[in-house]
Amino acid sequence: MANEIIVIGSGAAGMTAASSARATDASAKITVFTEDEDIAYSPCVIPWVLEGRSTWNEIIMHTPDFYKKEKDIDVHIKTKVESVNSDEKTVTADGKTYKYDKLIIASGGRVFIPPIQGTDLEGVFVVRTVRDGKNIEAALKDAKKIVIGGAGVIGLEIALAFANIGKDVTVIEMMDQVIPRIADRDMADPIQAYLESKGVKFVMKAPIQAVNGTGKVSGVTAAGKEYPCDMIIFATGVRANLDIAKELGFDIGQLNAIAVAPTLQPYKRGRLVPDVYIAGDVMQCQSAIMPGPTMSQLGSSAVKEGRVAGINAAGGNALFGPVASPWVSVIGEKQIAGTGLSLGLASWYGLKTVTGKATGLTRARYYKGGKELVVKVIADKTTHRIIGAQIIAGEDATGRINWLTSAAVEGVTAEDFLFRAENAYCPPTSMVQDVVIKAVEDLCRNLKQ
Amino acid sequence: MANEIIVIGSGAAGMTAASSARATDASAKITVFTEDEDIAYSPCVIPWVLEGRSTWNEIIMHTPDFYKKEKDIDVHIKTKVESVNSDEKTVTADGKTYKYDKLIIASGGRVFIPPIQGTDLEGVFVVRTVRDGKNIEAALKDAKKIVIGGAGVIGLEIALAFANIGKDVTVIEMMDQVIPRIADRDMADPIQAYLESKGVKFVMKAPIQAVNGTGKVSGVTAAGKEYPCDMIIFATGVRANLDIAKELGFDIGQLNAIAVAPTLQPYKRGRLVPDVYIAGDVMQCQSAIMPGPTMSQLGSSAVKEGRVAGINAAGGNALFGPVASPWVSVIGEKQIAGTGLSLGLASWYGLKTVTGKATGLTRARYYKGGKELVVKVIADKTTHRIIGAQIIAGEDATGRINWLTSAAVEGVTAEDFLFRAENAYCPPTSMVQDVVIKAVEDLCRNLKQ
Repeated sequence: MANEIIVIGSGAAGMTAASSARATDASAKITVFTEDEDIAYSPCVIPWVLEGRSTWNEIIMHTPDFYKKEKDIDVHIKTKVESVNSDEKTVTADGKTYKYDKLIIASGGRVFIPPIQGTDLEGVFVVRTVRDGKNIEAALKDAKKIVIGGAGVIGLEIALAFANIGKDVTVIEMMDQVIPRIADRDMADPIQAYLESKGVKFVMKAPIQAVNGTGKVSGVTAAGKEYPCDMIIFATGVRANLDIAKELGFDIGQLNAIAVAPTLQPYKRGRLVPDVYIAGDVMQCQSAIMPGPTMSQLGSSAVKEGRVAGINAAGGNALFGPVASPWVSVIGEKQIAGTGLSLGLASWYGLKTVTGKATGLTRARYYKGGKELVVKVIADKTTHRIIGAQIIAGEDATGRINWLTSAAVEGVTAEDFLFRAENAYCPPTSMVQDVVIKAVEDLCRNLKQ
Repeated sequence: MANEIIVIGSGAAGMTAASSARATDASAKITVFTEDEDIAYSPCVIPWVLEGRSTWNEIIMHTPDFYKKEKDIDVHIKTKVESVNSDEKTVTADGKTYKYDKLIIASGGRVFIPPIQGTDLEGVFVVRTVRDGKNIEAALKDAKKIVIGGAGVIGLEIALAFANIGKDVTVIEMMDQVIPRIADRDMADPIQAYLESKGVKFVMKAPIQAVNGTGKVSGVTAAGKEYPCDMIIFATGVRANLDIAKELGFDIGQLNAIAVAPTLQPYKRGRLVPDVYIAGDVMQCQSAIMPGPTMSQLGSSAVKEGRVAGINAAGGNALFGPVASPWVSVIGEKQIAGTGLSLGLASWYGLKTVTGKATGLTRARYYKGGKELVVKVIADKTTHRIIGAQIIAGEDATGRINWLTSAAVEGVTAEDFLFRAENAYCPPTSMVQDVVIKAVEDLCRNLKQ
């Protein structure tokens, strides 16, 4: 009898889980249910489509037909799962009941919208799916003034996209810096300044208190002041979609997402649930830097989780480990990237920190075209372990942050990093001593003091 | 009394040593002796100057005046050190005798020219210093056919530079593949094919037996066949310049370079030599991958060594560790990079190997401008440790090879790498799962078989 696998959700986690299950078991029957109408796309690129630099068709890589023909995976789009019965091992969707041997829940997250008045008005949007993107696109031509709620990386990417097409854009942020959770102030401020130079306005330390208008948005109130606008986009973070998990009585973790074992199985009253696997924005995971839970709502994490869930559901054997959650965002000519703990997160864990920083170029000084490169490295003052890093660069931030992630995850101290680290050198691709190493040199000096 | 430090050699190792000594001790008296007329430049970029993409002035970053004014370092150019007396702690140069407290020997290497007839003819060149480059430049306009002896990365970079300015270029290589020592055949062949597509001709498995001509080069004989040419450039590897080391009776290592301790002090009959430090192409070091000596004649290694030698000479405390020697070369639109052991070096160490390989893009598939990316990873079959990697890419090879270097140097197994590795993701800078991780996934599959 073929192993019957049902996947709920068609984001990066769900579709990777389905494909990994297929790669592990050629004969399994694999079915995906999703409320979305489009699958297999990267939501990260929605800002570029809205700016006109790409099209919806270009960013959608595969159709349900592709999955059927190439991988024998049945994808039911626009299909809400009505209920799951984990005792009888069935899923009910579209009025029909489907049996499963293994269930993968990758039901994702939802953009958090603050519980204030007016969020149901016409002109209030989130950016999560292609459908969200198309809704914004349809309303965009009549919108002159746009408010972005939240200065995280998605909010900033959208803000620049709109400024680039001539909109009057104001970002309203509750905290006193952009990218407040994962970037430090000294790295965030230059990004804010860059966006201001492109015409984006910022209102900081201003929680949004109301969306105003009659039928349609006419403005928002933040920190007691009104900001007129024709459209507001909430980019205020993603919360796990716990509908199914709560129905099934799964244990919910400290961060309000599904708690999982390294096999990605959930727990029910402290005991592992057999035959069910979790992947994507709906789960919490463990930090590779500090013992304890963390959220890693990144596309790259979703793929890694989907792979483990899919392999295990198909009878293979894979484990999902702790994460440092490296991230990168391209905002116009700037790249900002980070990994591990920011100073804020480190302080939340009660750690004392020491930092090192260096500035240089992405290429040899005399080689034309080199771009600015700022690297900041953070160590735990007690153990000297590298616990985080952030980079601002005109190019090539990603490889460098992956390099530092590897060191952080291996538990390398600043001194050991400096002792062992080497960088490949060629004038068009780096300085003879890479700025990453210079930053750790500075860190080691500061650790001595 | 000020600490008197003398540095012999003005390459990356010597000048970094002098600067690091100054950073460690503000009051030391620091003197550099060099036979060169130019200092503080990157020889790596000479091919680009010959191609007309840069100028000599652009690639020379600092003059002796700069070092005097900014760092209070005396640089004596065009000055040959005639002798060193390590008992009396003196250096004789230009007929004068200088006392030292600490001596740093960074006397570099010389291009190996095979002991064959005709290498003293007009039209025979090497590429090591700006002087070499200027000599080639002066002869270049009358040269139509050029032979490059040796298909290492420097030979290939020069070959493409000359092809790009319309010369008829033939690379003659003794081995049966390009970049034979540090690249595997499956990674080297695409680079050779790329150069052939740009008009470079190759003669493989052909040791150069003679340079022919009367007064001036008219051709070379290789594997019994004559190849007419107006110029030949030997790019046949660099040998340590051991003149001073032999005069002083320092122990020479197995690889015919100065053996050093982690402090970068040399040995004399097995005992550490006090007050002398070694840096750069003149020394051998330890492999971070396998116990045993290795050569790391790279600009990045020279800087790292210079830093340690300079700090120690100035009374500080630094150690030089084992190296994986990551390297990268940009050859036209292609980047090729590597780290640790190639298959050939691994087999020289008697290791059995398993490889993994993956092909993809440097950006998300749907994001315009992504370039080809091929990653190969090599593991020790017994321990499963990652011992080497090679990358061919249209862009961004360097960060990725540094990332893999970090893992290799930390002794990470393929399975642990796959379990722990994460990559920052953004459509313009990587695929959602980086090709590095895909290659290690393939490696883990192959290790299971």
